[in-house]
Amino acid sequence: MSTTDKQLRVGMVGYAFMGAAHSQAWRTVNRVYDLPARARMALICGRDTGKVAEAADRLGWEAYTTDWRDLIARDDVDVVDVCTPGDSHAEIALAALAAGKHVLCEKPLANTVSEARAMAAAAATAQAAGVRSMCGFNYRRVPAVTMMRQLVADGRLGVIRHVRATYLQDWIVDPQFPLVWRLQKDKAGSGALGDIGAHIIDLTQYVTGQLITGVSAVTETFVKERPLPAGSSGLAATVDGDGHRPATGPVTVDDAAVFVARLDGGALATYEASRFATGRKNALRVEINGSLGSVVFDLERLNELEFYDATRPAAEQGFSRILVTEGEHPYMSAWWPPGHIIGYEHSFTHQMRDFIEAVATGVDPAPSFADALQVQLVLDAVGRSAELGSSWTDVEPALATVAA
Amino acid sequence: MSTTDKQLRVGMVGYAFMGAAHSQAWRTVNRVYDLPARARMALICGRDTGKVAEAADRLGWEAYTTDWRDLIARDDVDVVDVCTPGDSHAEIALAALAAGKHVLCEKPLANTVSEARAMAAAAATAQAAGVRSMCGFNYRRVPAVTMMRQLVADGRLGVIRHVRATYLQDWIVDPQFPLVWRLQKDKAGSGALGDIGAHIIDLTQYVTGQLITGVSAVTETFVKERPLPAGSSGLAATVDGDGHRPATGPVTVDDAAVFVARLDGGALATYEASRFATGRKNALRVEINGSLGSVVFDLERLNELEFYDATRPAAEQGFSRILVTEGEHPYMSAWWPPGHIIGYEHSFTHQMRDFIEAVATGVDPAPSFADALQVQLVLDAVGRSAELGSSWTDVEPALATVAA
Amino acid sequence: MSTTDKQLRVGMVGYAFMGAAHSQAWRTVNRVYDLPARARMALICGRDTGKVAEAADRLGWEAYTTDWRDLIARDDVDVVDVCTPGDSHAEIALAALAAGKHVLCEKPLANTVSEARAMAAAAATAQAAGVRSMCGFNYRRVPAVTMMRQLVADGRLGVIRHVRATYLQDWIVDPQFPLVWRLQKDKAGSGALGDIGAHIIDLTQYVTGQLITGVSAVTETFVKERPLPAGSSGLAATVDGDGHRPATGPVTVDDAAVFVARLDGGALATYEASRFATGRKNALRVEINGSLGSVVFDLERLNELEFYDATRPAAEQGFSRILVTEGEHPYMSAWWPPGHIIGYEHSFTHQMRDFIEAVATGVDPAPSFADALQVQLVLDAVGRSAELGSSWTDVEPALATVAA
Amino acid sequence: MSTTDKQLRVGMVGYAFMGAAHSQAWRTVNRVYDLPARARMALICGRDTGKVAEAADRLGWEAYTTDWRDLIARDDVDVVDVCTPGDSHAEIALAALAAGKHVLCEKPLANTVSEARAMAAAAATAQAAGVRSMCGFNYRRVPAVTMMRQLVADGRLGVIRHVRATYLQDWIVDPQFPLVWRLQKDKAGSGALGDIGAHIIDLTQYVTGQLITGVSAVTETFVKERPLPAGSSGLAATVDGDGHRPATGPVTVDDAAVFVARLDGGALATYEASRFATGRKNALRVEINGSLGSVVFDLERLNELEFYDATRPAAEQGFSRILVTEGEHPYMSAWWPPGHIIGYEHSFTHQMRDFIEAVATGVDPAPSFADALQVQLVLDAVGRSAELGSSWTDVEPALATVAA
Repeated sequence: MSTTDKQLRVGMVGYAFMGAAHSQAWRTVNRVYDLPARARMALICGRDTGKVAEAADRLGWEAYTTDWRDLIARDDVDVVDVCTPGDSHAEIALAALAAGKHVLCEKPLANTVSEARAMAAAAATAQAAGVRSMCGFNYRRVPAVTMMRQLVADGRLGVIRHVRATYLQDWIVDPQFPLVWRLQKDKAGSGALGDIGAHIIDLTQYVTGQLITGVSAVTETFVKERPLPAGSSGLAATVDGDGHRPATGPVTVDDAAVFVARLDGGALATYEASRFATGRKNALRVEINGSLGSVVFDLERLNELEFYDATRPAAEQGFSRILVTEGEHPYMSAWWPPGHIIGYEHSFTHQMRDFIEAVATGVDPAPSFADALQVQLVLDAVGRSAELGSSWTDVEPALATVAA
Repeated sequence: MSTTDKQLRVGMVGYAFMGAAHSQAWRTVNRVYDLPARARMALICGRDTGKVAEAADRLGWEAYTTDWRDLIARDDVDVVDVCTPGDSHAEIALAALAAGKHVLCEKPLANTVSEARAMAAAAATAQAAGVRSMCGFNYRRVPAVTMMRQLVADGRLGVIRHVRATYLQDWIVDPQFPLVWRLQKDKAGSGALGDIGAHIIDLTQYVTGQLITGVSAVTETFVKERPLPAGSSGLAATVDGDGHRPATGPVTVDDAAVFVARLDGGALATYEASRFATGRKNALRVEINGSLGSVVFDLERLNELEFYDATRPAAEQGFSRILVTEGEHPYMSAWWPPGHIIGYEHSFTHQMRDFIEAVATGVDPAPSFADALQVQLVLDAVGRSAELGSSWTDVEPALATVAA
Repeated sequence: MSTTDKQLRVGMVGYAFMGAAHSQAWRTVNRVYDLPARARMALICGRDTGKVAEAADRLGWEAYTTDWRDLIARDDVDVVDVCTPGDSHAEIALAALAAGKHVLCEKPLANTVSEARAMAAAAATAQAAGVRSMCGFNYRRVPAVTMMRQLVADGRLGVIRHVRATYLQDWIVDPQFPLVWRLQKDKAGSGALGDIGAHIIDLTQYVTGQLITGVSAVTETFVKERPLPAGSSGLAATVDGDGHRPATGPVTVDDAAVFVARLDGGALATYEASRFATGRKNALRVEINGSLGSVVFDLERLNELEFYDATRPAAEQGFSRILVTEGEHPYMSAWWPPGHIIGYEHSFTHQMRDFIEAVATGVDPAPSFADALQVQLVLDAVGRSAELGSSWTDVEPALATVAA
Repeated sequence: MSTTDKQLRVGMVGYAFMGAAHSQAWRTVNRVYDLPARARMALICGRDTGKVAEAADRLGWEAYTTDWRDLIARDDVDVVDVCTPGDSHAEIALAALAAGKHVLCEKPLANTVSEARAMAAAAATAQAAGVRSMCGFNYRRVPAVTMMRQLVADGRLGVIRHVRATYLQDWIVDPQFPLVWRLQKDKAGSGALGDIGAHIIDLTQYVTGQLITGVSAVTETFVKERPLPAGSSGLAATVDGDGHRPATGPVTVDDAAVFVARLDGGALATYEASRFATGRKNALRVEINGSLGSVVFDLERLNELEFYDATRPAAEQGFSRILVTEGEHPYMSAWWPPGHIIGYEHSFTHQMRDFIEAVATGVDPAPSFADALQVQLVLDAVGRSAELGSSWTDVEPALATVAA
């Protein structure tokens, strides 16, 4: 901290839920971690002048603009942080890379495979010029998730046999919940699948070190027509209507997506993403069973990891609830004393920590756009399988395409 | 108890794991419940004279025989309790029904659909003559499961959206675990699918009151060759071998089966049965999400039910851990004071309670052979889908067939 | 089982809650365990002819009597099992020992220290003549509790620093719950303290291998007057009253007792027994912290033990939820396959197993009457401290007294 | 935020664990909450120039000083935030109040009752002049704790019968852990008692709305001599020693304190604070049983509250795990979408939120110095009881003294 004067001037596009989370992380990261560069919250961008000005003031950005092209064009921005809905990721990120800016892009990388391919290709090109890019699968940086990856990488689970991943929410169970942008295919690309399913695809591939090679899928839209929204904030929204019945529109994305998958290391996996799981608020849960042990993670209790070590004496085997809050655990030595838990937003602070370190030291951060393209290819295979009566559908290879 | 002299003389075929569990239940049921008839443990049958004699003595049966045809032929047997491996269910049960004996047959009903069809048809015929039959899906009688059924039936969960069922064990994770009869298709019919998958199929159909109409499935045999067994007991076994490498044989059943299903009430469901889930000993877990609430059940904590009631005030909603041990709960008023838990075997005692009551009062117990046939048809559809690249596969209707 | 013709003919006095639990255990024990003698349920005793006859029939006893002196006088009774309220323990047990019968006496051993002293002295005398005696602290035989004892005995917890024990129930929270015998000092000796507090005193002394040397205590009776009861069963009861307000009587025992204690090995301990802990049905919970590890037990989840091993690598330390249902665990190899849980009543079956084995092989079972006297002395110290403004009060030594 | 230009210029004394936590809160609070004033991190104070300069830079304070008297004397400081060890609280806070500064003082308020009395008296005097003061019992602002208070205040628990509070840590289990300032009476006042016991005293009094009137206590120092420290950070420390055995010193505070208490509303309570509970990192746990319901809180899972509502239908009663992360819950509407959890540090942000609002709107924040004095009086009674053989010891009244 006091050891560097090097700055990374960040320009962030978008200021809704993700924009607020990223702001908190940019604001905090250098206060907690000793890093080779300092992030400076230089510029924020949004289309509405009044709103973006208010956001800049509230979230603590030095300046604002209403034109993302302006943000990219400026010399005093080193990093472009893309926090918009998925339909604008490709255009902004491609322009930023072309302008030589380091790019952090929220997930999912894009709304379509072709966009994601173009972005991965552009990132590969930019990389040669020392320009870094990263996709914001922030849950990789939850300490318990990072620890799962380490346990697998260290061989502590043996041969991975099963992956069991669900990401369950319930914010649209009510049929009167309005038709927000996340329920519109042109804005969001897909529904639960791309929004939260993408997280468990990336997380499980990261933790196992295996890639999904094929899937069999079913998707479902339980409520097919919803009232048009008046306004929204985060995942909450209000319905438009002036005393009479509100106008409605069609839900064009999935409410839920379930699929079976095979991973290239031999594991059999199940995935479920749903916004109709009553009582489950943000229930990303992953269980991995290997020949030597198992791990279980639950995002609603993200400070904990359950680890079953089958090499322990038989009578003492059990799932250990490890409180992943100690100095020995990833990212945690910079935070609080033993047993003092962290929250959701800390995963972003950890992400910014690694991003800053990678950019400042000239290495590529992970997950790369190519990694994120691979997730997009899985999403695509899921969609195709669902359309083809759940038939087994291979995931297209990412590398060949990127190379092409 | 003291109010009746009516007896039901039971003849049980088989004396391994299921035979021991049934014996404990027959021995206990009239000591706990006040019923219109008393079970008498009249006769036990097994092929090996020495072993069945020992079993009769140990388990408390009055007599034994080595010929199940003899057992069925006897006048002093009212009920035939079939506890053998699946390959002999059909033959024994059909003969017993033909002889006018009430039949309790362990699950799965049979190893093939055609056998199950024949059994359901015979049961329907026998029913007209006042002969009762029942399939031993004992988990329906775990009080928390019965309570789940009641909550759904009372509309407390609203429209069912999701079913999430897993039955995970880990007793064959070790590749050196021997090739016991449960791993041989000719004896067991299938592997994890029929043995434990059948339980979650029946349980979720029972609880939701909905039937599975179609599936997309994957099955897997992780370890394809195993040493031949020297002996086995329950789920434990020893390997044959005299100092040199033991002889091996092919595993002809699935180690794991996963499938997605749709239920006839509109629910989307996922199922997983595996014997390779390290650390999971007997982890039958079911979660059901409806528009008004959710329930969660875990067989390893079978005295508990989690219930989320979405009609409660928003700030107080949560999954309630209900200790299903109170006098208000199904089956429990006959047992112990508040909070005193019961075990696995009690589900059999409850099953015998309902069976005795049904037989003595002349009504049909559930699940019927027709219900069990329906489970068999789901198992069959799973097998076919897995062979056809996970293509969506409709479950054949049971009723038409039985009627035919 | 088939290996012996040796019989132990049991005569049981009492047939309420404890009588039913003991009956289930006597009936089951030789069906599950291979033992050097068989228990025969020979004779049951109760004061009311009709009721005891009905109990004999229902619970499966060969004969009944209404006079416990007759039961003790008979030649065809080898074991006297005392299941009456505490006020008659001493008289019956002393007579039984004097008659040369082996005695199993329910806890607490007696209602007063002087009775308990006399019983321990008589047991010591009888022991010289080969007569065995045991007090029914059945929770010692919950497999997870036995395993805790083994872990401590093996040094796995190091130096014990803390014991934290609660036994919480809520069956008299309602002020209209009637004045049953358990709320009357002349019948029950004390309230929560002797009924459930005695369990946690014995359990923690057993597990730690340390004795309580002194206490500081508070007791409380929240509801001082209650309606007189019409009838009771287990812990349930109904109120007498014919349309007008029921007659009431004073509660003469404690509703709750809390105390701090020191153990002779240096541990600092807290104890709480209450019948006013709303929502806690049978919540016996114990946590023990040592210099090398900790254990946690919860009777409502009696198939589980949490074990924290501080000698594991720092990053992997956590409380392991051990499912104590496996063949490697105490008492469990005779029961069901992996992960199949047992219930409350099994602790009695295990108790009978050890009692039969001890009697048949001529060794003394534990806990002895002397052990139970020590618990009584702790109860006494608690009562005295509570009366003396919580002043630190030493527990009288048991051994010296017995020796005298 | 954009709605105000009013500033509160904060001067913070101390920059260790508490200083870092407060800094994170001051930095965040106006970014999340819309408040009538903005905190400005104006000045930080520490004795060592190099260290305080580094802390100012790292934690984001505009300026620093090495003299707290200077900090208090400055006109451009409105609020003095006291984050030093307890031995300097009184001197700094009294001077700050005398200078007309609003004061936020970390807990425990002081090391002695006489200091705390003086501080409470000064705060009462200053209050008349519009100067505000508050003691930093931050756990009151954990949303689940605030919600517990509301449930009790709304009568949802009925008459409170039992309070059960533990605060368990394990950071000094190793006898070689050095003699840091928290283990020295002259610096820390007491050990586990004042450091963490104070938290559970305040929390339970706050939640129940009842005050502790008397106690019976035991304290213990398990390890009486420890190596002298070389350096420390948070709760971690290193031992001094140059190859030979390090010098040692006496531990002059308690390692553990346990006490029984009575509250002025009739509740019976137990308290335990320990730094020797192996495996418990920051385990503040509270259970409260009332005639109509119970609540359970665990700081290691601070986003959850368990609530048992005994007015629900009997068969559905259970402890509900409420995820206290929703817009309906205290403090949470400003944070993230449903189910996204917060961490330890957020309790400080909430504290600053309430402090700023109180100061800006001219009302007194809670807990006041008088409230904190009352906690000090309980700590004092605990100490006296422990010295007097656990005799029941009344807590001195706070009000009379303050009035005097």
